[in-house]
Amino acid sequence: MPSQNSSLKSRTRTTVRKDRVGSEDQLVDRVVKSLPSITRERDAAARLGHLRVPLGIGDDAAILSPVGESDLIFTCDAFIEGVHFLRDVHPADSVGYKALARAASDIAAMGGAPRAFLVTLALPQDCAGRWLDEFLAGMKRAARKLDVRLLGGDTTRTSLIFVSITVIGEIPRGFAVKRSGARPGDLIYVSGRLGGAQLGLELLRGNVASAKRGRIANGTTTTSYRNSSAAVLQPHLYPEIRVELGAWLASHRIASAMMDISDGLSTDLPRLCQASGVGATIDARRIPWVEIPPRLARRLPPAAADALQLALHGGEDYELLFTVPRRNLPRLREAPGFSQLAAIGEVTRQRKILLVDDAGRARPLQPGGWDPFRARKK
Amino acid sequence: MPSQNSSLKSRTRTTVRKDRVGSEDQLVDRVVKSLPSITRERDAAARLGHLRVPLGIGDDAAILSPVGESDLIFTCDAFIEGVHFLRDVHPADSVGYKALARAASDIAAMGGAPRAFLVTLALPQDCAGRWLDEFLAGMKRAARKLDVRLLGGDTTRTSLIFVSITVIGEIPRGFAVKRSGARPGDLIYVSGRLGGAQLGLELLRGNVASAKRGRIANGTTTTSYRNSSAAVLQPHLYPEIRVELGAWLASHRIASAMMDISDGLSTDLPRLCQASGVGATIDARRIPWVEIPPRLARRLPPAAADALQLALHGGEDYELLFTVPRRNLPRLREAPGFSQLAAIGEVTRQRKILLVDDAGRARPLQPGGWDPFRARKK
Repeated sequence: MPSQNSSLKSRTRTTVRKDRVGSEDQLVDRVVKSLPSITRERDAAARLGHLRVPLGIGDDAAILSPVGESDLIFTCDAFIEGVHFLRDVHPADSVGYKALARAASDIAAMGGAPRAFLVTLALPQDCAGRWLDEFLAGMKRAARKLDVRLLGGDTTRTSLIFVSITVIGEIPRGFAVKRSGARPGDLIYVSGRLGGAQLGLELLRGNVASAKRGRIANGTTTTSYRNSSAAVLQPHLYPEIRVELGAWLASHRIASAMMDISDGLSTDLPRLCQASGVGATIDARRIPWVEIPPRLARRLPPAAADALQLALHGGEDYELLFTVPRRNLPRLREAPGFSQLAAIGEVTRQRKILLVDDAGRARPLQPGGWDPFRARKK
Repeated sequence: MPSQNSSLKSRTRTTVRKDRVGSEDQLVDRVVKSLPSITRERDAAARLGHLRVPLGIGDDAAILSPVGESDLIFTCDAFIEGVHFLRDVHPADSVGYKALARAASDIAAMGGAPRAFLVTLALPQDCAGRWLDEFLAGMKRAARKLDVRLLGGDTTRTSLIFVSITVIGEIPRGFAVKRSGARPGDLIYVSGRLGGAQLGLELLRGNVASAKRGRIANGTTTTSYRNSSAAVLQPHLYPEIRVELGAWLASHRIASAMMDISDGLSTDLPRLCQASGVGATIDARRIPWVEIPPRLARRLPPAAADALQLALHGGEDYELLFTVPRRNLPRLREAPGFSQLAAIGEVTRQRKILLVDDAGRARPLQPGGWDPFRARKK
């Protein structure tokens, strides 16, 4: 059968040919119908912010017409079974949610508004049923929260679940906040508690949370976890992306540099500093760390139950890390969610990354220097 | 070590953490340095057509500033080991070349100019050496031919080679040629010989060509094929993308509908017709098919040695399939490479796809209806 949806398409393959074209087209249809998509039928003249969409899914490619003076922001992000998630550990709807959310976080980290996305989805045959339904439900939830629409993609059968997402964002021209603008004396902020995603991962790994199955607070999956653990797993399974805050900081020109924390504060802060040609001193006592419920802490290895270590080295929080010149501090109080923001330190001229500990001693902060996690990798 | 190249980045992974950050950063560096890339260092104010690039690789995301009245075109395409190519059959430089070329073909098929691309590259550890060098050399060659620049991406280690490419193209506003514009009476054209890619695949599959190793005409690979077979393998390994022709047909408003032939004429022509709400009658005697050297034909299974069947059902030629209203025919003669174009039939009001055979009989053309290929799938 000819496909209407070939900009989200199933292409000729070298080893598996033609026989599955029927089911591939069905796969494409399911993806397009499950997600907020821009198709010829549904949106003759869709508009995403300052982008008109004269052509969505259903041709060789999709077309965007920028209207007015916007800059466009592009990022792509892979989410792969066995690397970024485990099929038997992570609920399918979390995989769908997170694949899109983490890609969109790069747009938020520039201060942009995510507008549209393209998805490459390679799936084993046995994931084409309920797993896919839940995956798409999770991705749909992320798309609705982020207010992005599907513009196109590619679907294939493989032996491994592979997702790659390209997100297109938009920002008023010249307002994007780069990593390179931090200056000595600027204060360093984070947008929320750190370490929660890593804690959730540790709990899932240890099966602490999955001993019994239940329904997770915000999830739509049936393969999920005990109610009592739902809240503590949420930062790992369904991270919040700080789109509103990022856009506010950019549009009001409050932040001098910004990025999202994806690989952990101790890895990402040096990246921001290197891009800006500066150093930083942060204070352990000011880092907002996640609270570990005592009943869970008992079941974790000691290092994973150390909230400061989680906050310093844990990845995937997708909180914003940004610097603010002191003259902008009064205006920062008007930021959305200001009460959640924490000033954790200061940008320094000296190109070192220092951590001031509880006792007030400043020591070099090593990136990702948490051995217990290393030792527990696959 | 902090990375300068995090918009082409290696992200936190769930099962393999931190230990390979060093080598991942090296991988990113190799990709960025091997390909025509836009980085902060190299291109302070790069310009791609009517797109300024205020920020390339090296931040959370890349930024494009559209200048003037262009439409932007987006497509993404996966290229996966075991699905689209075989690691022990296809030279790494062909994998790199083709992954980018086939994605860019979707831009050409709208009449656009490819400008930039993002790459998701997931590689097994044992492909990180010479295989990667050759892969990048092939991709670089495609990038130079297509005049596109790398804007960002994502790299990961996996057990399977996985490539996903997003290409961003540009076209003067409103000039894109969709699939939906064909009208009864329009002539149907193809841009070159069909079936060559499928023939090359059949030869590789049968190891006809790989019995002895040598250097392929246009390739840079050392894992390549006997000189005598190089030309016949080229359409499969290094397809030409019809960017110039597509852009000419669009900018002169010659074509009423257009797409690229990726899944074979018998599959793609019905797609174009369905999008346009029309049918087609094509003439087998007018289809420009690939010539099969007799010495090779003898070694192929009978069906694979049937040039008409290859031309009708073979995939991956990436030639353009387009329709031209009769009033535009005089101007079509000025098209670049006009002598290679072939009028193979006519658009009809009746919504059937008919093939007129050697004897002048019109019969329904079945999509991909070539059983021998089906039977030989993996």
